[in-house]
Amino acid sequence: MTTTSTNTAAQGAAEIPERMRAAVLFGPRDIRVVDKEVPVPGPDEVLVKVAMCGMCGTDLKIYDGHFPQTPPYGQYTPGHEWTGTVVACGETVDELAPGDRVCIEAHHGCGRCDNCLVGLYTACLNYGDWKKGHRASGMTADGGFAEYAVHNVASLYKMPENVSFKDAVLITTAGTGLYGLDATGGYIAGDNVVIFGPGPVGLMTVQACKQLGARRVILVGTRASRLEMGRRLGADHVVNAREADVVATVHELTGRGADLVIETSGSTSTPQQCVDVVRRGGRILFVAFYPEPVTFDLSAVVRNDVTMYTTRGEGGNNVKRAVALAEMGRLRGEELVTHEFPLEEIQEALRVMREREGDPLKVVIAF
Amino acid sequence: MTTTSTNTAAQGAAEIPERMRAAVLFGPRDIRVVDKEVPVPGPDEVLVKVAMCGMCGTDLKIYDGHFPQTPPYGQYTPGHEWTGTVVACGETVDELAPGDRVCIEAHHGCGRCDNCLVGLYTACLNYGDWKKGHRASGMTADGGFAEYAVHNVASLYKMPENVSFKDAVLITTAGTGLYGLDATGGYIAGDNVVIFGPGPVGLMTVQACKQLGARRVILVGTRASRLEMGRRLGADHVVNAREADVVATVHELTGRGADLVIETSGSTSTPQQCVDVVRRGGRILFVAFYPEPVTFDLSAVVRNDVTMYTTRGEGGNNVKRAVALAEMGRLRGEELVTHEFPLEEIQEALRVMREREGDPLKVVIAF
Amino acid sequence: MTTTSTNTAAQGAAEIPERMRAAVLFGPRDIRVVDKEVPVPGPDEVLVKVAMCGMCGTDLKIYDGHFPQTPPYGQYTPGHEWTGTVVACGETVDELAPGDRVCIEAHHGCGRCDNCLVGLYTACLNYGDWKKGHRASGMTADGGFAEYAVHNVASLYKMPENVSFKDAVLITTAGTGLYGLDATGGYIAGDNVVIFGPGPVGLMTVQACKQLGARRVILVGTRASRLEMGRRLGADHVVNAREADVVATVHELTGRGADLVIETSGSTSTPQQCVDVVRRGGRILFVAFYPEPVTFDLSAVVRNDVTMYTTRGEGGNNVKRAVALAEMGRLRGEELVTHEFPLEEIQEALRVMREREGDPLKVVIAF
Amino acid sequence: MTTTSTNTAAQGAAEIPERMRAAVLFGPRDIRVVDKEVPVPGPDEVLVKVAMCGMCGTDLKIYDGHFPQTPPYGQYTPGHEWTGTVVACGETVDELAPGDRVCIEAHHGCGRCDNCLVGLYTACLNYGDWKKGHRASGMTADGGFAEYAVHNVASLYKMPENVSFKDAVLITTAGTGLYGLDATGGYIAGDNVVIFGPGPVGLMTVQACKQLGARRVILVGTRASRLEMGRRLGADHVVNAREADVVATVHELTGRGADLVIETSGSTSTPQQCVDVVRRGGRILFVAFYPEPVTFDLSAVVRNDVTMYTTRGEGGNNVKRAVALAEMGRLRGEELVTHEFPLEEIQEALRVMREREGDPLKVVIAF
Repeated sequence: MTTTSTNTAAQGAAEIPERMRAAVLFGPRDIRVVDKEVPVPGPDEVLVKVAMCGMCGTDLKIYDGHFPQTPPYGQYTPGHEWTGTVVACGETVDELAPGDRVCIEAHHGCGRCDNCLVGLYTACLNYGDWKKGHRASGMTADGGFAEYAVHNVASLYKMPENVSFKDAVLITTAGTGLYGLDATGGYIAGDNVVIFGPGPVGLMTVQACKQLGARRVILVGTRASRLEMGRRLGADHVVNAREADVVATVHELTGRGADLVIETSGSTSTPQQCVDVVRRGGRILFVAFYPEPVTFDLSAVVRNDVTMYTTRGEGGNNVKRAVALAEMGRLRGEELVTHEFPLEEIQEALRVMREREGDPLKVVIAF
Repeated sequence: MTTTSTNTAAQGAAEIPERMRAAVLFGPRDIRVVDKEVPVPGPDEVLVKVAMCGMCGTDLKIYDGHFPQTPPYGQYTPGHEWTGTVVACGETVDELAPGDRVCIEAHHGCGRCDNCLVGLYTACLNYGDWKKGHRASGMTADGGFAEYAVHNVASLYKMPENVSFKDAVLITTAGTGLYGLDATGGYIAGDNVVIFGPGPVGLMTVQACKQLGARRVILVGTRASRLEMGRRLGADHVVNAREADVVATVHELTGRGADLVIETSGSTSTPQQCVDVVRRGGRILFVAFYPEPVTFDLSAVVRNDVTMYTTRGEGGNNVKRAVALAEMGRLRGEELVTHEFPLEEIQEALRVMREREGDPLKVVIAF
Repeated sequence: MTTTSTNTAAQGAAEIPERMRAAVLFGPRDIRVVDKEVPVPGPDEVLVKVAMCGMCGTDLKIYDGHFPQTPPYGQYTPGHEWTGTVVACGETVDELAPGDRVCIEAHHGCGRCDNCLVGLYTACLNYGDWKKGHRASGMTADGGFAEYAVHNVASLYKMPENVSFKDAVLITTAGTGLYGLDATGGYIAGDNVVIFGPGPVGLMTVQACKQLGARRVILVGTRASRLEMGRRLGADHVVNAREADVVATVHELTGRGADLVIETSGSTSTPQQCVDVVRRGGRILFVAFYPEPVTFDLSAVVRNDVTMYTTRGEGGNNVKRAVALAEMGRLRGEELVTHEFPLEEIQEALRVMREREGDPLKVVIAF
Repeated sequence: MTTTSTNTAAQGAAEIPERMRAAVLFGPRDIRVVDKEVPVPGPDEVLVKVAMCGMCGTDLKIYDGHFPQTPPYGQYTPGHEWTGTVVACGETVDELAPGDRVCIEAHHGCGRCDNCLVGLYTACLNYGDWKKGHRASGMTADGGFAEYAVHNVASLYKMPENVSFKDAVLITTAGTGLYGLDATGGYIAGDNVVIFGPGPVGLMTVQACKQLGARRVILVGTRASRLEMGRRLGADHVVNAREADVVATVHELTGRGADLVIETSGSTSTPQQCVDVVRRGGRILFVAFYPEPVTFDLSAVVRNDVTMYTTRGEGGNNVKRAVALAEMGRLRGEELVTHEFPLEEIQEALRVMREREGDPLKVVIAF
């Protein structure tokens, strides 16, 4: 249904081919790079020539066939951490123009449900409802493991010149951490913060917390190389949970316990540790998913007047804030990109990520 | 551009005429009731057979030609407090169906600017931008002084059977007060509240404050009939500013001053009174417009750690809350409707309202 | 250490005896009513002739010897839900005067730790530190199972004449529910609320939610008599978890799930039900304690952007709000008082409560 | 009433003289340095050997006799921006020990009024009530223009070794700005901020905003030397209101206007400029006092859904946050100290400050 002429009809389009190479999921663990039509941006959408697309744990779930409400097998192109250059804009779009480099947030809400109306668009009540305008790029709609991708203009953020595409991939990730901080109030100047999980979300959040004025940022993990990276990115203390008593160490460093605890690890034993290290009256933020139900001492949480926040994805317009911090040189993403693959090797990329071969931190497909 | 067949294409349409009677503004103070095409709902829109449309001070400004970003003279149908029955739905709409009785909020945000993304849609940065989807019914788009009107589905609220159309007109007004309360935090159980201005917004807010658990609601105004109405609607105390010392009275009744002061009068002398009656650490909410700049003792506000909130219109999905309160019989609108006119007498209705003939409270056009 | 003359030194004292009857805990499950000196109010304290003192689950824990930081056995008088009449005031007190009827909040914070400074006094970091001024009446300090009790003036609230002592006992309980609501934002007008646990906290919270404008209040429990009481106090729907599918029922009644879920039951299986009935973007409030760690699907919470609040006790000055609601006749406590005992029968009262003999709701010691 | 032996009774006292040199206000514009008894700390208080005490505009008002609720002439020692070394602690104090270097917040709330209970202690309803424990050091109680001063332990903050006394004087000032930011939400990462007034509050707030992640900090003033200082301290842009069109410049730099506007100048013409530069949906923070009532376009504020915050003093425990930022080297105070005088020259210091001789920024009395 798409042709060059159609895209030419969109504003400013030039030399956009009719077809492109794209990864398509044909079934569980069956992803193939095939020829596919270049998508046409709708009135509120933008067509982007993808420069890079990151992978995260969700992509492994998608690859394995464990993700709800995706497009049908045989058509579905995953990839929700992409960045690139605008090549065409839908007819209502004047916020961006061809040539602009952009990064994304994956979720675009319907704009009309009770949650979207009050700004909770990553909790859109019409999640997956294509007709009502909801899109989760790479999840319920085609994403960035392809030469071209479309997305709603509201979910695209113009990048300043001094931010690289590698940084841009991680800006989406940083948006997740910032949205979580936003939910907790976001005023952490002088606070002691413990972050569990030195993966991409944890490491971007380490930086964000320091940039927002946190006093001590204590990063907890199990892999020395990642903890070392955390230290380089600004963690004041790192704790290897395999070697040290996490709870005792945090109390030694903070006295009363942490003002804010951020759990990004997804390990089922970590929530109890969160409870053990948070101070009375403190806050816990969960931005992770767990393989099974989690058990912890809820009475202690109540006794200590602790609030437990959760956020999903990079909502609340926080990617805009992440871009601003990156522009000032206060959020670094490039260092997290440990592995790059061309699109044609996406299967190999997924394997490396799953098997943690070479201790990958952020694996990207680069075009 | 509209035909019966087009509207039939929308879901469930039946017996919708091609043309209707509608008030159209042809120039300042030149409003005429003319024949006009019945509008066709877009994909996210709903066509409503209007039952009633209220008038407010803004309509007088519009009539006089003092309102920005309206549709062109000769086409523009004002009216932003309307209610009626759904007759056709755009192709993406399943939230409502023909036969549903609905009330409205006037503002529909673009859904893509920095404010809409975080839920501040009445402060949409694309106000008046038709292409990007912003609509303020009766202000930047045609409204309800007509037999039929369209609006975005996100701005329509289904009414329960026990709520009348007269109530419905005032539900929009109540949404303004509730949005203001929402902005101030909305937790007023046991608080002393002073409300300046016993107009429709003030009177609906009197009721809302009592329904949210306020202790003493003190209504201040200058017209005895309106104050009496306020008392009937739940005000614990009414103060006639022409007869009593407002500041002294409030301090007598509250001791320390009011926890929350709500200014709906639009009188330039009232802001100073707000400052004089609010307690240290209290809140002032302004939901009025003033004919000229306002002067008050800002130092006193700072010295007293007072926060001054403002809200515009009925945002934050608060009309939904107003509908729920009305359904429970906890918000009454009918009693405020003092004057009813048929559409053909809209000029007379505007005259009566402007000249305050017969002490009108809420004047409506009824179909 | 106390004498009549000492108390006479305090303001307004008159005819205060030197000694009184008081329940004293001599060891686990060893409570005896003995003669004891009437306490003398410190400079910021007030001496109250106790009229009534309620019992709650915490008193059973205390009786069994399972409560930390209490005064020593042989001296310790429990009781933290008391009410009575002021008989003497410390030298700095002018907020109250002899003859005033008062109700209490149990916790008085130190006023100088990081939590008290920002208003979180029930999470005082100097909990139990007598020297620094922290007092939890009946928990870390002597309480109300005695003819006289002292408390800090900041934790006492003057009662209007139309509120009975039975109501007053439950006002403290209502303060717990209101503080919880306060923590969640407190703006619930039009919201659907599910409350688990029709005990005193649950039943007072049912009333509070209706009074703050909730749309549907759904009360879930297992005892028919308590659910019936809930219905009388304003619950729109009651669900007997032994007879109905709670999750299905809530979704039937609310559509999307509850906007706010309040868990007061303390049953370890309830938190998962909270997760199952809350809507995407909703809130859960935990104001219960659990006999053991709790297991639930935390991923679902994160996926649904749900915030989990907890509060302990009746903080945030919310007892003041409860008093105001009671004064307006909008919070009823008397009906919850099912059993009354004289002080000398406190052991029997504790037995009745533990064994649930006669289906007790609120058991009180009356003087 | 004080003797060496009394102070020895306090913990850890050593070699504290009975008498000291102190500035005492004997009447309007009549300040003299005299001999006076060294104060004795109460149970919750700490005696500090003052190292330095800053002056601000409030001190000029005090000197002129225009400040309410001060101690009586002939006894009253002003000075509310002091720092020094602990020499003795009241009997309940274990948070600090002799030898600790401390900085202060001026306000100590009563801890028992409705505002203190919820954390608003700079809006204490018992302001000036000595009996109930309120103290505003240097305002309602003796302050720091003396060799020794006492203050409540809750209002003292231990300083890390790497922070100088000059920094410490400005930490109190920074607390004012941070409290204001706290009131507005405090989450300004990526936001554009305009700050009016490059005095000490403004300059400390410039730093704080950058440290909390603001994107563009635009400082507006009229004195080139102060603007230059602002630039050195981190302002991204400075605007000389005498040379440039402030409103146009801000809109050029920000596009939509500023997300947050902070007014510290106290000039009566500035509030209108705040309204003109804030974006729709933005926030204005007033932390200044004005010589007379202020006039501005309140309708524009309402139309734009702008919230106007005010805060007084350095509340909300924000001095703790300021100390943490200073410890990390992220708040610099020393550079603002332009003039130092010995105590005996306090009159000259006041003259220099009033007459702006030598363009003073922060004038201090150093011991």
